[in-house]
Amino acid sequence: MTGTNESPTFADMINGTLELVIPIAHTMGVEAVEVRRGFAATTVPAEGNGNHFGVMYSGVLFTVAEILGGAIAVASFDNSRFYPLVKDLQITFKRPAKTEVRAEASLDDAEIERIAEQAAADGKSDFVLDATITDTGGTVVATTRGLYQLRAHRKQEN
Amino acid sequence: MTGTNESPTFADMINGTLELVIPIAHTMGVEAVEVRRGFAATTVPAEGNGNHFGVMYSGVLFTVAEILGGAIAVASFDNSRFYPLVKDLQITFKRPAKTEVRAEASLDDAEIERIAEQAAADGKSDFVLDATITDTGGTVVATTRGLYQLRAHRKQEN
Repeated sequence: MTGTNESPTFADMINGTLELVIPIAHTMGVEAVEVRRGFAATTVPAEGNGNHFGVMYSGVLFTVAEILGGAIAVASFDNSRFYPLVKDLQITFKRPAKTEVRAEASLDDAEIERIAEQAAADGKSDFVLDATITDTGGTVVATTRGLYQLRAHRKQEN
Repeated sequence: MTGTNESPTFADMINGTLELVIPIAHTMGVEAVEVRRGFAATTVPAEGNGNHFGVMYSGVLFTVAEILGGAIAVASFDNSRFYPLVKDLQITFKRPAKTEVRAEASLDDAEIERIAEQAAADGKSDFVLDATITDTGGTVVATTRGLYQLRAHRKQEN
């Protein structure tokens, strides 16, 4: 992007690589809409993502929320040293989703610092991310609690 | 299928309708491989379902296991009266999945009878389904615990 006036945002970076990084999420139409240190929001459309009740399939709701862990890590930690993975995720379905949905989650500064320090010291650090998924009317359709781990890249062998 | 010698199996029925019922699961390549009263097994291929670590994306593992709740309900309950829905699902990732995976779950006869009786009496019945997801080497890559509900169809208004 050298020579342009604006740097790409974290959301641009994620959307530009999602097809390569997690092709099935790209197929669903998952998009990052707002990603910054300590905060991420994603959306996924209703079209093509329904089930036999005419509502969004549970695996699509899982995906739009699960991806927040990766998105928030991209914007909050040193990606040259660390990467995130998901260890466990619980999703609770509250209401049927019949529209596009938006998922969002946040991590506060103290928690970001704790994770970064522990991962630097120990090579890994677990963290919990709570996400809320809402429809376009503002109704919460599902919530998730994910246990993620920030992990140091293996050192290159020389 | 009138006039043929063999009835379609429950797995045939599920595979024949999955593209319509849950298109995104069909896109992933999820298939029912063995479905009978009290038991269901499904598979999904590695191809197209990876993530940035070169392993199967968590949302695909969620889907191949979550679908067992619907599959087992098709083969265990009166589908003209009842349908299943998922209320809550927890998935625990044990090992990276690098091959096709198989998910399976079972319900014993006493539990099937309890669910059917309660749903007939109350219009709904919650049940828990534990599933195991293994790779082609037999390694357990993830486990799930889903809370489902068998619910009576609404009566037609006349």
